[in-house]
Amino acid sequence: MNSENMSQRLDAVFHPRSIAVVGASNTPNTYGYLFMDYLIKAGYRGVLYPVKPGSEEIMGFKAYPSLKDIPGDVDYVISCIGARYVPEMISQCPERNVKCIHLFTARMSETGDKKGHALEQEIASEAARLGIPLIGPNCMGLYHPEEGISFAYDLPKKPGKVGGIFQSGGIAVNFARYAGVRGVAFSKVISYGNAAGVNECDLLEYLAWDKETSIIAIYIEGVRDGRRFFKTLREVSAIKPVIVLKGGRTGAGTRSSFSHTASIAGSLNAWEVMFKQCNAVQAADMDELVDLTVAFNSLPAITGKRVGVIGGSGGKVVLSADECEQSGLDVVSMPGDVMDTIREKAPELVNWLGNPVDFSILGGTSLNPMDFMQIMAGSIGFDFLICNVTEENPFDHTVWAQLITMEVNEYLRVLSGGMMPLVATIANPGLGLGNTGEWHWKNLLERREEMQSKGIAVFDSVRKAATALSKLVNYYENRKSIGHGGSK
Amino acid sequence: MNSENMSQRLDAVFHPRSIAVVGASNTPNTYGYLFMDYLIKAGYRGVLYPVKPGSEEIMGFKAYPSLKDIPGDVDYVISCIGARYVPEMISQCPERNVKCIHLFTARMSETGDKKGHALEQEIASEAARLGIPLIGPNCMGLYHPEEGISFAYDLPKKPGKVGGIFQSGGIAVNFARYAGVRGVAFSKVISYGNAAGVNECDLLEYLAWDKETSIIAIYIEGVRDGRRFFKTLREVSAIKPVIVLKGGRTGAGTRSSFSHTASIAGSLNAWEVMFKQCNAVQAADMDELVDLTVAFNSLPAITGKRVGVIGGSGGKVVLSADECEQSGLDVVSMPGDVMDTIREKAPELVNWLGNPVDFSILGGTSLNPMDFMQIMAGSIGFDFLICNVTEENPFDHTVWAQLITMEVNEYLRVLSGGMMPLVATIANPGLGLGNTGEWHWKNLLERREEMQSKGIAVFDSVRKAATALSKLVNYYENRKSIGHGGSK
Repeated sequence: MNSENMSQRLDAVFHPRSIAVVGASNTPNTYGYLFMDYLIKAGYRGVLYPVKPGSEEIMGFKAYPSLKDIPGDVDYVISCIGARYVPEMISQCPERNVKCIHLFTARMSETGDKKGHALEQEIASEAARLGIPLIGPNCMGLYHPEEGISFAYDLPKKPGKVGGIFQSGGIAVNFARYAGVRGVAFSKVISYGNAAGVNECDLLEYLAWDKETSIIAIYIEGVRDGRRFFKTLREVSAIKPVIVLKGGRTGAGTRSSFSHTASIAGSLNAWEVMFKQCNAVQAADMDELVDLTVAFNSLPAITGKRVGVIGGSGGKVVLSADECEQSGLDVVSMPGDVMDTIREKAPELVNWLGNPVDFSILGGTSLNPMDFMQIMAGSIGFDFLICNVTEENPFDHTVWAQLITMEVNEYLRVLSGGMMPLVATIANPGLGLGNTGEWHWKNLLERREEMQSKGIAVFDSVRKAATALSKLVNYYENRKSIGHGGSK
Repeated sequence: MNSENMSQRLDAVFHPRSIAVVGASNTPNTYGYLFMDYLIKAGYRGVLYPVKPGSEEIMGFKAYPSLKDIPGDVDYVISCIGARYVPEMISQCPERNVKCIHLFTARMSETGDKKGHALEQEIASEAARLGIPLIGPNCMGLYHPEEGISFAYDLPKKPGKVGGIFQSGGIAVNFARYAGVRGVAFSKVISYGNAAGVNECDLLEYLAWDKETSIIAIYIEGVRDGRRFFKTLREVSAIKPVIVLKGGRTGAGTRSSFSHTASIAGSLNAWEVMFKQCNAVQAADMDELVDLTVAFNSLPAITGKRVGVIGGSGGKVVLSADECEQSGLDVVSMPGDVMDTIREKAPELVNWLGNPVDFSILGGTSLNPMDFMQIMAGSIGFDFLICNVTEENPFDHTVWAQLITMEVNEYLRVLSGGMMPLVATIANPGLGLGNTGEWHWKNLLERREEMQSKGIAVFDSVRKAATALSKLVNYYENRKSIGHGGSK
């Protein structure tokens, strides 16, 4: 089938009215149990059919011995059965008008075994002949919070605007989990494994035109059709940011990717050149994939790199300046309009105060940190601000908690004024359980969640914020220079 | 005074029998209060003399109007008074046989103001003339847990083997805090600010021969005497690992460092060449300074780069391989002795299983992950192992918690066998307060603390572990090739 057909078909299958879990089970901690459990916990509203020979009932739902015994149409099939049983199951799909098959089932081409490879080919050909899109094998399938479909029990239930395409199921689940606790919500995330049927290009084309999706995150190990991928990625990147993490960048990674999803990972240089030509946003690792998603999820289309860095004292300010400049941002000198205010209100600071702003030197002057932040947020000399939430506070925890609450409230006040895009950094340095432990952790997390919920992009460190912002600005600058809309 | 004299003097002052806090105060959240409070909370066992005119008593201790009114000798003075009062205070020091003065007092050369600069010069000259080492101005002074001396209220009380030399007080406090919750304990950490008296070379020489210190971490913005620093750093690095974070690596950072500690930061290239020639261990940022300290604190002198990576499934394994290889480690193919075992126990995996090991493919074979780990730990083909604590677990939290507890117990069992240096990674991805929140965070932290307390080096991610290990191996390889002991 051609790719337009595939996109239309995928749109139908991502909103399934009924799902059959083939190989469902009442035994906890088997995948036949877990896929049922995920759907139940995510609140799937359609009809759920567990399929297992010899069972009357599974997890409170009437069970059927096989697909063909189900009394109605099945839009979506999740297969948790062994590889050798899959051909028989597929042969029953047309009778139930199945619109899509997800093979969690693995042990095919990724084993490096000829038989496994041949079985995968046979299954894929048969599904193609029947016109049924096949997701997998060897993958987690679909997370679509709006429909109550999930591939884990602890992912955000609220839908959002980030779409995901993941060759690896583990990475897909962790991405949704880690970006989720950073305030990101999702349209749909698809783990597609060995890509014997539906592949990364089909999914990219689908998400490109999906109204629920504004940003796309991808993890790929290899692609089936390099030319089509290049063309698709370039076209989609002109419409929406596409953030790419490439697995198998090194010799060892390439060997691993073959035994994971049977992918030929290819040379790193070729990939990097392609990503650059496509204006895809490259993530260096998993942490950065999440950071970039947070940045694009919360920030507008910033197209300038002049950064003002607010807060932190002494060494923190020196390191913040280094990290911003090393990431390619312009740590501009304090703009003229801000300097005019300093000259007027605290002339003793004229030769001292710089960008980044060391808040600790404002003590005893007529400028307090909060007012100063307002002045910077109103300056025409910055494109955006990075705000370091105070971490070096010398006081005990009650006072410190009050102070960072005040500070965060001020960031929120500045943000609500809408004068300037704001980014916040708040440390997550692996806090302990002892005396620096729980209160500190909870307070940091509460402040972080408060900021996230109001739309501030929050990062662990200035380095991470600066890296993400630099890539975000590059993306929007490049997109502007080549013009919006589906370029050729 | 010459540097040998300085080292002897510093040794005396780091074990002070009495401390005067000049400018002490009963007003909470002033530094005159905080420095008293830090000493009290850290359990300082010597005599404590608060000094403040007009006060009878401060925080339960008899107060004195000035240094000269104190009825006994004062070994160590912490000055929290304004800069202009310092000369008078210094003039009283000889009468009390003061052995060291710490000037928390700031607003001197770092302001960029000529008067501040002149005052600093005057104070430093006078202290030198009197033969009293001066720490600062503009710094946090001393954290020495064995003596109950601290510059913050929440640092580890148990002494350890890491020494620190920090030009920035904020960075010093955060370093001790963040490395502390990662299982590191300290001999002594000194924040020395503008370095008008005691400087980075004096401190480096002192810690080089300090029996309590095995590893040295340094944060510098600039040095007073480049030639001496080079010579000292090279000599000390031949004896103990010296981990260096340089602030002011960029144009913007250099400008900031001048207004922080009046340092001339100099060109990055010159610094990097020097660090390399000295075999100093360079940290790229604050996170890495902590990671490297954790690595050197827990691991032996590993001199080979052949890494085995244990655990994780699918994409995690691919990315782990990439990250190890990009960090310069050798992700060797599975060694022959391990392959022999696979051929014998699970021949179906011979073409599939690689290094890193994807645990998820062991299911249904006669090899379980824990046994497999033992086999790898016994192989002569690896120099060390990186163990990914399982994060992608599909089960709910009770089962997951049981599984990671079992897994961590197995790491501890392998470690206690002493067969192989072990590194563990456990995610700290900024977990939330919601349904993925507290239980998950607590469990991860409890497992992390358990491993740390047993001497395993624990990192947030394979990237961080691999970066730290690669630098650790480089350090020991280079040291071996130039010979141990104080080389010239």
